[in-house]
Amino acid sequence: MAATPVRIAVDAMGGDHAPGEIVAGAIRASEELGVTVLLVGDHQQIQNSLKHHVHAPNIEIVEADGAISMDEGLKGLRRKPKASINVVMDLVKQNRADAVVSAGHSGAAMAAASLRLGRIKGIDRPAIGAVFPTLIAGKSVIILDVGANVDCRPKYLEQFALMGTIYSQYVIGVEQPKVGLLNIGEESSKGNDLALKTYELLEKNKEIPFVGNAEGRDVLSGQFDVIVCDGFVGNVLLKFAEAVGEILLQIMREELPQGWRGKIGGQILKPNLKKLKQRIDHAEQGGALLFGVAGICIVSHGSSQAPSIFNAIRLAKEAIDNRVIERIQADKSTYLGKIVDSSDIVNSNP
Amino acid sequence: MAATPVRIAVDAMGGDHAPGEIVAGAIRASEELGVTVLLVGDHQQIQNSLKHHVHAPNIEIVEADGAISMDEGLKGLRRKPKASINVVMDLVKQNRADAVVSAGHSGAAMAAASLRLGRIKGIDRPAIGAVFPTLIAGKSVIILDVGANVDCRPKYLEQFALMGTIYSQYVIGVEQPKVGLLNIGEESSKGNDLALKTYELLEKNKEIPFVGNAEGRDVLSGQFDVIVCDGFVGNVLLKFAEAVGEILLQIMREELPQGWRGKIGGQILKPNLKKLKQRIDHAEQGGALLFGVAGICIVSHGSSQAPSIFNAIRLAKEAIDNRVIERIQADKSTYLGKIVDSSDIVNSNP
Repeated sequence: MAATPVRIAVDAMGGDHAPGEIVAGAIRASEELGVTVLLVGDHQQIQNSLKHHVHAPNIEIVEADGAISMDEGLKGLRRKPKASINVVMDLVKQNRADAVVSAGHSGAAMAAASLRLGRIKGIDRPAIGAVFPTLIAGKSVIILDVGANVDCRPKYLEQFALMGTIYSQYVIGVEQPKVGLLNIGEESSKGNDLALKTYELLEKNKEIPFVGNAEGRDVLSGQFDVIVCDGFVGNVLLKFAEAVGEILLQIMREELPQGWRGKIGGQILKPNLKKLKQRIDHAEQGGALLFGVAGICIVSHGSSQAPSIFNAIRLAKEAIDNRVIERIQADKSTYLGKIVDSSDIVNSNP
Repeated sequence: MAATPVRIAVDAMGGDHAPGEIVAGAIRASEELGVTVLLVGDHQQIQNSLKHHVHAPNIEIVEADGAISMDEGLKGLRRKPKASINVVMDLVKQNRADAVVSAGHSGAAMAAASLRLGRIKGIDRPAIGAVFPTLIAGKSVIILDVGANVDCRPKYLEQFALMGTIYSQYVIGVEQPKVGLLNIGEESSKGNDLALKTYELLEKNKEIPFVGNAEGRDVLSGQFDVIVCDGFVGNVLLKFAEAVGEILLQIMREELPQGWRGKIGGQILKPNLKKLKQRIDHAEQGGALLFGVAGICIVSHGSSQAPSIFNAIRLAKEAIDNRVIERIQADKSTYLGKIVDSSDIVNSNP
């Protein structure tokens, strides 16, 4: 793996804008990031999309047969073993790719990953982790679970905290991450049954740099690097946050251009508004990571266009470069115990 | 009640900016809304705040002894029967006031209301309902519960839906409200255990105009008038939403004024930006309503300043004018059955 370039299997058939936008994002990633992209899907359709691009270096097509529609769900996965989401997972399993990116049905991606790659030992339930920008420019927070497990036990959240910590340290590069438990108050006595029991577990676990409860208002404050919650509240929050960004942009589009002030002021402010949009827009994040499956899988938004796919591939490359899976697979206490007084792991990347 | 002006008991000692900002908001409300405000708290402190205002018509001071601090909680309520939050509730109980407004500890307000006013018959658990602005200008959505009940049973959510419907119809004035269940997908098969069971109840209950699941992205879309959820996820969402508004304003303050473009464009756009701020700022909402207690109680944000208190008093007045409590107390099927083909109730306000 050290000598060969990173290879990423991209589900060319998944998402609302497949395969055109997926292919466009993949080409940009192969050019700018130096990765090899395996575009998985219908050969003819992918070829047609590739035709629009003059250069397509380091792109390979891997044939797949069909995709899983939104309403097929798990049954479709088993009925269509050659569907693109199954084939991308197989490529990782067979060591022909180092990671997967898909903008298709996220539930199907989670199920295909669990079935074909298996879970990491010691992890009861895989989780979906989403990276959010925070109020502090350049600082992000990872929230998990955002949708894989709607009913959780306290120990699942404990495992999410452990995986999130490793990710924050080795991929995001936070030396001493702060882990929070999503809750309705700061005090340890606050919360529902799950939160109360999870609080106790997190406080006792010396491998988790738990700093306390994170309220809704703290999520994007930058005070926390990792926030754990069950997949129900996490999913509501994720979708709400995505929508809020869009709503804000829409309100700006409605209110700012009004009258002569709007016309002139808006024109002058155009570059500033563009920068503002970038800080709000969720497409900049690229996608969410599946945590706990034995392979790197990035799940992008169904509405992803080329920039999102590019960012998702970049995210996958970062996870590969930083050996996230190996670190989670390894004795967690070794890694987490070492991080403060040693940098050998951080520096031993291939 | 028909002849006398509406009387609102305001907890002058509750909130970060008490009593100064509370008094200022109360005076404005008494002037602009024609209500009588009973300012409840330390006589001397309230007098000192009143001194800053030339006019203070329709303001009365009602003496109270102390306030409940954030960490005292329920014990404090019982130990201090003359604390301001207890006295405001007593005023309603004794029919000396028609509603309560407090920016103090919301848990204490909820507990004091339950203990001193009692619950409405047929309602197992009171809930806190928060009104959010939506993407559609002028249209709002009420979300309940946003914090009173962290662990809920399906039938609690069913009762929240019923109370929210009545509020939407008679206070907000939506003829045929659309009720949604906060969930992680549109399909009835989606969700955690609570959501699945609640979905069944809501679908069966003919008094509830249930239209299906509301995802995080739908909360502010304007598609729903009432959204029900447990108090854990509701509280996380409420605090997240409040913070997002502030974060956005901060990002705007950071990005917009940069460079010469920012300086000039920002000046020109000032009135538009102000309007934008108004649509985002949660202070415009005034407060949340306690649903299910036998009296009208508005709980304002702890950080409330005069404009929030003014808006909270306005909200209280609207709830009084539209007889929310009587309507919830009455046979719900009568009211809900009538609304579509009759307007006698809407027009029979005192």
